[in-house]
Amino acid sequence: MERIMLAHGSGGRLSHELILNLFQKHLGNPYLNQMNDAAQVPGREQIAVTTDSFVVSPLFFRGGDIGKLAICGTVNDLAVSGAIPKFITLALILEEGLLMKDLERIIKSIAETAAEAGIVIVSGDTKVVERGSADKVFINTTGIGYITNRLVSPGQIRPGDEILITGTIGDHGIAILSEREGLEFQTPVLSDCAPLNKLIDTFYLPGVKCMRDPTRGGVATTLNELAQQAGVSMLLKEELLPLSASVGSACEMLGLDPLYLANEGKALVIVGPEVADEVLMKMQAHPLGQNATRIGQVQEGKSGLVLLETFLGGKRIVGMLEGEHLPRIC
Amino acid sequence: MERIMLAHGSGGRLSHELILNLFQKHLGNPYLNQMNDAAQVPGREQIAVTTDSFVVSPLFFRGGDIGKLAICGTVNDLAVSGAIPKFITLALILEEGLLMKDLERIIKSIAETAAEAGIVIVSGDTKVVERGSADKVFINTTGIGYITNRLVSPGQIRPGDEILITGTIGDHGIAILSEREGLEFQTPVLSDCAPLNKLIDTFYLPGVKCMRDPTRGGVATTLNELAQQAGVSMLLKEELLPLSASVGSACEMLGLDPLYLANEGKALVIVGPEVADEVLMKMQAHPLGQNATRIGQVQEGKSGLVLLETFLGGKRIVGMLEGEHLPRIC
Repeated sequence: MERIMLAHGSGGRLSHELILNLFQKHLGNPYLNQMNDAAQVPGREQIAVTTDSFVVSPLFFRGGDIGKLAICGTVNDLAVSGAIPKFITLALILEEGLLMKDLERIIKSIAETAAEAGIVIVSGDTKVVERGSADKVFINTTGIGYITNRLVSPGQIRPGDEILITGTIGDHGIAILSEREGLEFQTPVLSDCAPLNKLIDTFYLPGVKCMRDPTRGGVATTLNELAQQAGVSMLLKEELLPLSASVGSACEMLGLDPLYLANEGKALVIVGPEVADEVLMKMQAHPLGQNATRIGQVQEGKSGLVLLETFLGGKRIVGMLEGEHLPRIC
Repeated sequence: MERIMLAHGSGGRLSHELILNLFQKHLGNPYLNQMNDAAQVPGREQIAVTTDSFVVSPLFFRGGDIGKLAICGTVNDLAVSGAIPKFITLALILEEGLLMKDLERIIKSIAETAAEAGIVIVSGDTKVVERGSADKVFINTTGIGYITNRLVSPGQIRPGDEILITGTIGDHGIAILSEREGLEFQTPVLSDCAPLNKLIDTFYLPGVKCMRDPTRGGVATTLNELAQQAGVSMLLKEELLPLSASVGSACEMLGLDPLYLANEGKALVIVGPEVADEVLMKMQAHPLGQNATRIGQVQEGKSGLVLLETFLGGKRIVGMLEGEHLPRIC
């Protein structure tokens, strides 16, 4: 069949065929293949759980697609929490009429990214809604990880800590925007979409206080949340912000602030000053952390305040994202 | 604010307000309130995991709503697998313009049903898409349960086993259909939507071989799956099928076969003949199992075949659901 039909979501014969010919074919593993109402998987005394839905538009973009994004987003939420991502569930809402080849491309991408991240898909669900009641494909992934002895939480952040980021900022936001608007850059901007768990495994050491992935709302919103939760202020330096040339010129041209653009393969990492150099070196030794750098410092001062020291030496407040300039970025 | 706006899904200030004023207000608990990228919850050596998205239309119907359904569906998938439902994640995809009071009504219903089932919501996510890109509200719930020593699986089913159901069939399907089509019955048909975990706790005993909740595709499709997985055939008796008077007359009037209608608060339970009476008595002693009854028997014979002995004494094959007569039933 060339296109998805309502009956693919009926729970009947066509649903079963889709499971066998597409999901089990590409994603099959002993847990998924149990074919029971719930999968039975090995747990631990403490587990980490996170859920995320993905509604990105367009479905395919430079550097990724909605399937890759759905795995990376959930793997990264587990990894920055200090957990080892292990299992993911996959729930699809499909619009009637979706091209089967697009769905297959997404499922293959999910399979590849899951393999890269070392996680397995253990349970799934597919619903189909009438044409016009959804926009092509929405994906939910829910992740389960094993809690480690990595103690990371905003409560550990102290004045004097350094704020690191594992690479350039704004790439995902600009990649999606340029896809939508048909913008062309000399060097095309690729989404940074990537699973971060293996990178984190290489640089984590005691002294790493807190990690977050600055997705929707960008670095600015994430740091505002952390500063509020930790009851500290933070000072960023504009000259330290790592931007690719294309993202920098896109932001200038379009009047966008890269601090608010989404990232899908970066971690903000707050570390004690005594380990900052060591953590940075380890980040930079990994392909996903080559451009890792310091961007600022935690300070005493008004709780929740994030400041930016500009190129000219002035300071301005960097607030939480207001409104929404780029809907459906993830 | 009276309506959901795109900025409620931005990850910025309005997202935070929605979390505080709606989700934490009604669903708050120590796990959810951690407000980290992933919740840390107590696990077990073996855990059960299941995921389901809900796209039911309309959102509100006699006997339930999409929120209640989203909790029941996932709780029941865990419970019929023999697990004790413990934790649920909640991911919402909202259409821009959704009435805030409708969302609040759904969230309250989720809170009530979660309390009734004894589970907690540990992680959440909200995305908002432009008006016309989704139909009001889609919900994903993913559930985690603790594996018990309840051994239930299709592999245990043997010829001679009895097929029980915990109550009348087709109520959810007819409730949704009558809501959509404006049908009125003398006795209105309510969805049977209910969490089954506590009912199952009261009747489970060794000798219960397999349990399933016959949702999409109905009793017919679920028994076809079981008969195939177990390599047996099954014989149902039409005179034993429990139907409410209203569902019975609706099916006659509309030419629908109740065996294919969705149920959202019923379990099919296959038991060894030696415990059938005891299990039935225990079911009937619980408010959700009052109309529990035998509907047929497992037999030798062609693997995967489900037969119905009609009122007139003839036999016909009951196949898996073909096509889709009631899209967006759950």
